[in-house]
Amino acid sequence: MSREIPYKTYLSEEELPTAWYNLRALMPGKCAPLLNPGTGQPMTLAELSQVFCEELAKQELDEEHEFIPIPQPVFDFYKMFRPSPLVRAYFLEKALDTPAHIYYKFEGNNTSGSHKLNSAVPQAYYAKAQGLKGVTTETGAGQWGTALSMACAFFHLDCHVFMVKCSYEQKPHRREVMRTYGADVTPSPSETTEIGRKILAENPGTTGSLGCAISEAVERAVTTPGYRYVLGSVLNQVLMHQTIIGLEAKKAMEKYGIFPDVIVGCAGGGSNLGGLISPFVADTLRGQRKCRYVAVEPVACPSLTRGKYAYDFCDTGRVCPLAKMYTLGASYMPAAIHAGGLRYHGMSTMLSELHDQGILEAMAVSQTQVFEAARTFARTEGILPAPESGHAIYGAIQEALRCKREGKAENILFGLSGTGYFDMVAYGKFNDGVMQDYVPSDEEIQAALAKLPPQP
Amino acid sequence: MSREIPYKTYLSEEELPTAWYNLRALMPGKCAPLLNPGTGQPMTLAELSQVFCEELAKQELDEEHEFIPIPQPVFDFYKMFRPSPLVRAYFLEKALDTPAHIYYKFEGNNTSGSHKLNSAVPQAYYAKAQGLKGVTTETGAGQWGTALSMACAFFHLDCHVFMVKCSYEQKPHRREVMRTYGADVTPSPSETTEIGRKILAENPGTTGSLGCAISEAVERAVTTPGYRYVLGSVLNQVLMHQTIIGLEAKKAMEKYGIFPDVIVGCAGGGSNLGGLISPFVADTLRGQRKCRYVAVEPVACPSLTRGKYAYDFCDTGRVCPLAKMYTLGASYMPAAIHAGGLRYHGMSTMLSELHDQGILEAMAVSQTQVFEAARTFARTEGILPAPESGHAIYGAIQEALRCKREGKAENILFGLSGTGYFDMVAYGKFNDGVMQDYVPSDEEIQAALAKLPPQP
Repeated sequence: MSREIPYKTYLSEEELPTAWYNLRALMPGKCAPLLNPGTGQPMTLAELSQVFCEELAKQELDEEHEFIPIPQPVFDFYKMFRPSPLVRAYFLEKALDTPAHIYYKFEGNNTSGSHKLNSAVPQAYYAKAQGLKGVTTETGAGQWGTALSMACAFFHLDCHVFMVKCSYEQKPHRREVMRTYGADVTPSPSETTEIGRKILAENPGTTGSLGCAISEAVERAVTTPGYRYVLGSVLNQVLMHQTIIGLEAKKAMEKYGIFPDVIVGCAGGGSNLGGLISPFVADTLRGQRKCRYVAVEPVACPSLTRGKYAYDFCDTGRVCPLAKMYTLGASYMPAAIHAGGLRYHGMSTMLSELHDQGILEAMAVSQTQVFEAARTFARTEGILPAPESGHAIYGAIQEALRCKREGKAENILFGLSGTGYFDMVAYGKFNDGVMQDYVPSDEEIQAALAKLPPQP
Repeated sequence: MSREIPYKTYLSEEELPTAWYNLRALMPGKCAPLLNPGTGQPMTLAELSQVFCEELAKQELDEEHEFIPIPQPVFDFYKMFRPSPLVRAYFLEKALDTPAHIYYKFEGNNTSGSHKLNSAVPQAYYAKAQGLKGVTTETGAGQWGTALSMACAFFHLDCHVFMVKCSYEQKPHRREVMRTYGADVTPSPSETTEIGRKILAENPGTTGSLGCAISEAVERAVTTPGYRYVLGSVLNQVLMHQTIIGLEAKKAMEKYGIFPDVIVGCAGGGSNLGGLISPFVADTLRGQRKCRYVAVEPVACPSLTRGKYAYDFCDTGRVCPLAKMYTLGASYMPAAIHAGGLRYHGMSTMLSELHDQGILEAMAVSQTQVFEAARTFARTEGILPAPESGHAIYGAIQEALRCKREGKAENILFGLSGTGYFDMVAYGKFNDGVMQDYVPSDEEIQAALAKLPPQP
């Protein structure tokens, strides 16, 4: 094969982005603010700083600065696992016999196994810089918890992780990775917090959810001196840290004069997708470039495709602020699908707004479809993907097959957010043909939506 | 930190080596030939071709060509996971407070989790090119089996893997990765082969060894039409394929005018270490460069440090040719340490010869020392290493501490051959403080050496 574009493109160290991109500075007033559930008023910096590190609280509220400089210690840590490669999926293209050009940005080449480290590093850094003793967090599939454990080990911070119980049981080895980096790991819901005991009393035998785990982690943080809570997705700050993905991808593609026609990503809380598309969306919002943006979510947790755009609690325990988002209701308990990282009832405010404006499309897929796509990808491109990332692969394959039908040589970019090395129980079920799909009934979704809080 | 040398160096696609390096062409007649155990004569191409693909048999015997071109389809596959980065371990240096400059070549950025894919790809390619239906092999820790499964999926070949029973039980998820790529996996020793049944009868309850698994895989290959056997280490051809590691590392270091003062690698069968050092040893043999070369092996399986340099069977079942090597005797059953990839009774002929000539040094370490070093590395450099690679890290740290004592700013290069993502049971034991060390007694080793075959 003669190839003008290399199979993989790595930016050099000098080419690495030195600032994150804050898309909200381009859409002021468009993204609804977090509200204090008690007062119904926008959360203030002082209020947010009781839960989050102050610098992160500032970033959360920032609608002014389009670029936020990356602190030098964060930049130094980034160099341990960044840049990530932009890959031209020549072998997948060949297997699909498509005229489309498929690119993916691969974020799995680090021990956390995913893009999560991009935000864990600055969050741990700002906590250390503020003189804190430790941080608490939740984790679903375990990638965020691992990433935060790594960052805390590096900056010498304590790290308490509440891991969604069904993932804790499906992935015992994840716990051990976090412990190797020095973290404490508790299955959630647990008896160690007031809210955990309440959730267990109301739902005995529950396998947990990200919403529950968030409540427990927040409670632990605000009741432990010298601790703050950090979150791996959903929030503005997190999406902004993740723009390192999109900034690198855009720079790499620009080397070859390429702009994507469609960008596809999996969407749970939205950090990976938001980080990937933000720098591209900026060009679209400015009217400089046309591009389609596609979110792929699980049918078992379809916030964008079947949820409602409304103010809702970020957590099941209703201790967090209200965010305006596409949501299934904070009480919605998604089935125990293997893409644990996508089992979140809502979606980041910014992505929700882009979806509402018609800029971000959305589709929902079943987990057997996802694993079929993931296995095809593994066998052709050589990387065993995370189930979460399998959603993006499925979406990208659909786009490539559409290009084939339409005879179009479009440029497709998708986010390969992570690897599936800790998901072998799930792959085993798929290999044995015993994997089940879960499609919530309309009644189930309406029941959860009926519990949305009063709208401001 | 101001840094002239980047944290990571990736060669560009144009800079990738297009030929493997065959060190034996520089030491003709020095490396003892494989012998036919029946005749006592060197194995011929015709004899080797009954077990191996013909092209690989040719490579096995080649003492003539210093460079062997990499076929284009192999080169194309290589680009999916190569080049691997050459990393300057700035954070490890800082943690050790050493004047030494530590570099490592990281081979774990692919789904097999190790360097093994470097040889699996050409071996599968040559099998396909010869029109075979499938291949058989053994695997210890599972990295080689995974690598071969990936390569066979890509080239559409059947793949039968005999996995050492103790690793099969310690790492059930490894089996699932291989199955996802379409391979058959059998724990060894098994009842599916004659030699397996014999070994089980003689050693009921044995946890197996690489030597046993090799015997079974060879038997399966020679008794199944359209199949050949492939091996992941020890052989000349394998070490030669692995020189892609050393060639890339050397080219990357030369960009900065650096030549290592000492190179450290873990050694089981020798493929990773041999591949890393070969291009450098060439300069040493030519008298152009001085460098120390250090093999690090487990105290539980100390072929170089406590074995004998003699002709021995490559496999426990004694169906393979005789190789001259440092060996503990083919009947030696190493304890079930977690570095499954290093549980081999012998050592590649070429490395054995270099050790005998005093060019290659050797040291043996216990597994608790190894995991301590591995955890330190994970927390400072962010990568969770394989237990095998932990041996190299331990050795490199010792060299760095020596440099500190001696006040020398030497350049240390080590091979980080793989990741430990499937070794969390082992890390768990270490984290819980219940990991045991195994040091064989002199009697045990002498008993195994007493069973060496008559020397030619």
